[in-house]
Amino acid sequence: MSQPSIPTPRTRLVREPDRAVYDREAAYQILDEGFLCHVGFAVDGQPFVIPTSYGRKDDNLLIHGSAASRMLRQLKDGIPVCVTVTLLDGLVLARSIFNHSMNYRSVVVLGKATLVDQPEEKLEALRLLSEHIIPGRWADVRQPNERELKATSVLKVPIEEFSAKVRKGPVVDDEEDYSFPTWAGIIPLETRVGTPIDDARLLPGRAVPEYARRYSR
Amino acid sequence: MSQPSIPTPRTRLVREPDRAVYDREAAYQILDEGFLCHVGFAVDGQPFVIPTSYGRKDDNLLIHGSAASRMLRQLKDGIPVCVTVTLLDGLVLARSIFNHSMNYRSVVVLGKATLVDQPEEKLEALRLLSEHIIPGRWADVRQPNERELKATSVLKVPIEEFSAKVRKGPVVDDEEDYSFPTWAGIIPLETRVGTPIDDARLLPGRAVPEYARRYSR
Repeated sequence: MSQPSIPTPRTRLVREPDRAVYDREAAYQILDEGFLCHVGFAVDGQPFVIPTSYGRKDDNLLIHGSAASRMLRQLKDGIPVCVTVTLLDGLVLARSIFNHSMNYRSVVVLGKATLVDQPEEKLEALRLLSEHIIPGRWADVRQPNERELKATSVLKVPIEEFSAKVRKGPVVDDEEDYSFPTWAGIIPLETRVGTPIDDARLLPGRAVPEYARRYSR
Repeated sequence: MSQPSIPTPRTRLVREPDRAVYDREAAYQILDEGFLCHVGFAVDGQPFVIPTSYGRKDDNLLIHGSAASRMLRQLKDGIPVCVTVTLLDGLVLARSIFNHSMNYRSVVVLGKATLVDQPEEKLEALRLLSEHIIPGRWADVRQPNERELKATSVLKVPIEEFSAKVRKGPVVDDEEDYSFPTWAGIIPLETRVGTPIDDARLLPGRAVPEYARRYSR
C-alpha cells in the first residue's frame, strides 16, 4: 500500500534539515501515538487552525469533523488542508539561550480533505477513530443511530505529501560554551494519564474497564 | 490595555457555542499556561500548520520564528495567520459513542504577523519568550550574540480577534442513555514533568536549578 516517501518542495524542510524524517513508517509511529491534531485550512485567504481528534487507516487520516463546520462549508471536491500532529517530549536547556530547544516529534500532512459521507463507510470511520483514541471502547458503547450519524462528519485526508521532524537526545552547545558556568540538561515532558473518574450516575457494579484503567499513549 | 472581546463572524463559534469563551482574561489564562502553539498560514492557497513556542506580552503573542522560514518568505507588511493553543485535560467516555468528547481548553487568535526586527525589541521579545516557557532561565544562560540574534526571528501577532473554547466537567449523556449498561467517566490527562536530566558535560558542582527542579505548567 505505502508509496515511497519523497519530499516535495512543499514538504522539504527548510530549517534544520537534519531533523527531517521522510520515512513513512517513522511518520506513522508518530501519527499512531497521538490522537489530537491541528487542522489548517483557509477561508478567503484567512487561515484557520482547529484542534480535533484523528485516526489513521492505512495511508489515510480520518479526522473528526466536530470542529470543521467552518471548513465544511468550503467543501466541494475537496479542500486543501494541512494536518499537523505534535508530540512534546521535553525542554532542552542549553548553556546558550540560542541553543535552547525542545525535544518533540511532529508530522505535517498536506492534502485534500474529502467528506466520508457514505453511511457504512462513515460508521467504519467512526469506529476507527474511536479505536485509535481508546482501543476497546467501541464495543462497550451505545452505537450511533441514524440521526447521530448524520450529525457527525468525518473527513478523509490521504497521507501522500508529508514530512516529519524529530528532535531528540541531549543538549547540543557550541564547543566554546561548554565552559559557561550554568546548569544544562533536559526536562522531560510526557502525557500523564490519571486515574479514571466514575460518572456520578454510573449504574451499580460497573467497574472501570481494563482499557480505561491501563490507558496510556 | 485590553479591549472588550467581541466575537467577529470569523471567530464566533459555529459548533457547540455553549463552549465558547470570549472573555479576554479567560483566554489569557489558557495562553499563559501553554507554551506550544500551532501557527497556520497559507502559501499559494495551501495552508501550513507549524508547531512552535510562543509567549505573551500584554495584548500580543510573540512567536518563535524557528519554524517559520516558509512563512517568513511571505512576510512584507504582515501575513494573515491563525495561532491556536490547545490544552488537553481528559477523555470523556459517555454511554453513547456520539457523546464521547474531550475536556480541553483552546484559544484561536486570528491576526497579522509582523517581524520583530529592531535588535533591542527582538532581544526583549526573546527574553519574554524564554521567561514564558521557563521562568528564571534567562538570567542563567549565555546571552545571544549579534550573529545569533540575526539568525533568530520572532513574530508578533496582536491578540485582537480571538475566541476560546472550553469543555470541562463530567460526561453528558442523553437522558435515555443513562440506563445503558456500560462504564462511563473521565480519564484525566495532564502534562507530567519528569526529573531533570543532567547534561553529560556538566561542569562540576552545577546543581539542577530551582526553576527546573520545580518546573510545572
